[in-house]
Amino acid sequence: MAENRRVLLVARPQGMLRAEDFSIAVEPLPALADGQFLVRNHYASLDPAMRGWMDDVPSYLPPIPLGATVRAGTIGVVVESRTLDYPVGQWVGGLNGLEDYSVGAEGGTTRKFDASRLAKVTNYLSILGGVGLTAYFGFLEECQPQPGQTLLVSGAAGAVGSLVGQLGKLHGCRVIGIAGGAAKCAKLIDRYGFDAAIDYRGKDVAALSAAIRAAAPDGVDMVFENVGSDILDAALLNLRRNARVALCGLISEYNSEQRIGARNLWSLIVHHAQIRGVLATEFLPRFPEAREQLEAWLTEGKLTIDEHIEEGLENAYPAFMRLFDGSNQGKMILKIA
Amino acid sequence: MAENRRVLLVARPQGMLRAEDFSIAVEPLPALADGQFLVRNHYASLDPAMRGWMDDVPSYLPPIPLGATVRAGTIGVVVESRTLDYPVGQWVGGLNGLEDYSVGAEGGTTRKFDASRLAKVTNYLSILGGVGLTAYFGFLEECQPQPGQTLLVSGAAGAVGSLVGQLGKLHGCRVIGIAGGAAKCAKLIDRYGFDAAIDYRGKDVAALSAAIRAAAPDGVDMVFENVGSDILDAALLNLRRNARVALCGLISEYNSEQRIGARNLWSLIVHHAQIRGVLATEFLPRFPEAREQLEAWLTEGKLTIDEHIEEGLENAYPAFMRLFDGSNQGKMILKIA
Repeated sequence: MAENRRVLLVARPQGMLRAEDFSIAVEPLPALADGQFLVRNHYASLDPAMRGWMDDVPSYLPPIPLGATVRAGTIGVVVESRTLDYPVGQWVGGLNGLEDYSVGAEGGTTRKFDASRLAKVTNYLSILGGVGLTAYFGFLEECQPQPGQTLLVSGAAGAVGSLVGQLGKLHGCRVIGIAGGAAKCAKLIDRYGFDAAIDYRGKDVAALSAAIRAAAPDGVDMVFENVGSDILDAALLNLRRNARVALCGLISEYNSEQRIGARNLWSLIVHHAQIRGVLATEFLPRFPEAREQLEAWLTEGKLTIDEHIEEGLENAYPAFMRLFDGSNQGKMILKIA
Repeated sequence: MAENRRVLLVARPQGMLRAEDFSIAVEPLPALADGQFLVRNHYASLDPAMRGWMDDVPSYLPPIPLGATVRAGTIGVVVESRTLDYPVGQWVGGLNGLEDYSVGAEGGTTRKFDASRLAKVTNYLSILGGVGLTAYFGFLEECQPQPGQTLLVSGAAGAVGSLVGQLGKLHGCRVIGIAGGAAKCAKLIDRYGFDAAIDYRGKDVAALSAAIRAAAPDGVDMVFENVGSDILDAALLNLRRNARVALCGLISEYNSEQRIGARNLWSLIVHHAQIRGVLATEFLPRFPEAREQLEAWLTEGKLTIDEHIEEGLENAYPAFMRLFDGSNQGKMILKIA
């Protein structure tokens, strides 16, 4: 008889996330009520945003309660159903959790999708999921790109960053990426088509700023920021008039008790520039439009998305931590079954 | 025979501004070329922005060169002229310097104005000058106020802050001010019509945030920020969805070598909020519209502007420093003659 394993959050993380903050519960499969269906989860999306949901602070989603399953975007197949709307065998995706099985309901947020249209079913968690939607709305809405302008992307070899750089090129922008190490920098140019790459390793704010200045002598019109602190401070030193900084993430400080944020905010004043938070869910009604466009670009070979798949619910913690040490090679996905 | 005294910047300030960073030169009156005119300066505007012009960093205006007159907005009367456009006796205002006499030229940026229309000629340096224009465009353009929304103003008893709070009330907003000390807080409510006042003295970020939360339990839609660091961090902890932070100044760090900026930038992400720099000069073509509106509100008694006038070019340094210790009681103006 099948069992349901669930990854639970059992302690509020203090600074660096520890393996002991999680445990795995093993339980019988849940019983279904009328209108419900049971999903066998096959893949889960591992995203930096999940780190924020583990803290007990007000946010766009409630904190994950202690003792509850870790919230995550998942895809899977309906294996039992008490609603005609979600027949057995149907692929579905939704914001569920790190668990073998999830229960969905008619009228809930779990969506059906046509897996046969996708090159790989996991694309639904990468380019057609939060990563693609965040890159799409974060770049188009918060950066307001204009052809010929210069875009700086930090965390550029990451899932969102690499897509944003490619979107920049599709919109006629000059694109500079910041990443850690020579291999990632080469990948930015060779695989994702960036115009220039900067290795942040071993550079303080002044050296980073000088490297940006060398790549963009007239400054940058747009910044897509995933990292924060030193890297954001260096970007702020290179803004052009009316620059737009899309603040998508601050991964440098998610596992730290010390927050730095940005120290060079004066630059926003003298360049009449702005920082705006990126939150894809603000554009929920436009998700179908975005998915259609992203899928078209993918099919036409205009976008490259890399996926890094680790296996096994028991490996959720080390796989998640790869997002913070930068050892992932693309969108981080956990294969559950 | 009249002489021209000029306040010179003789050293680049390191952190806290010192009296020794300035000296006074005494020189013969400058000779005029065709098309030029000589202005006897009567009043100079002392503004926090001048501190930024003293640093050797790229900005919207070039740094004040070492050995040059300290740049300042001034008003005065034409006392000698070699152009029919600027007759002797005409009141003019412009971005000149802390000096007894300035030379203007046809086609330059020094503007004539009708002093007889003003209740006090110094209004041209306060509500109709940079202070009024900064409050007007910073609030209307960067905060995008909507009736019924909540506005938080820091540095609220200052010249710009007190005007912004009044503009907020004129636009149907609920207005909360942050200032230093009970007297200033009482003034916010009694004289400027704020709905609530918070004394920042003796409060850390958590206590400030709790005080803001008490005054605005549902958070704030707009922040007009003049101070930065702890006060901005506390404001960021109380943002509502789609909040707009107009960043007008960071006076807490202008005389410090350590910059803090803002540490709670994550709040911009989770609330889809923004910080935008305030720079009135971006709206130069609309200055006449703004001056007309501000003058109308002043005449109708809908705006109160306080001016704090100190006398004597030789007192420029201590008068300027009042902006940073908060001992000024309104727009800081230096009477030259």
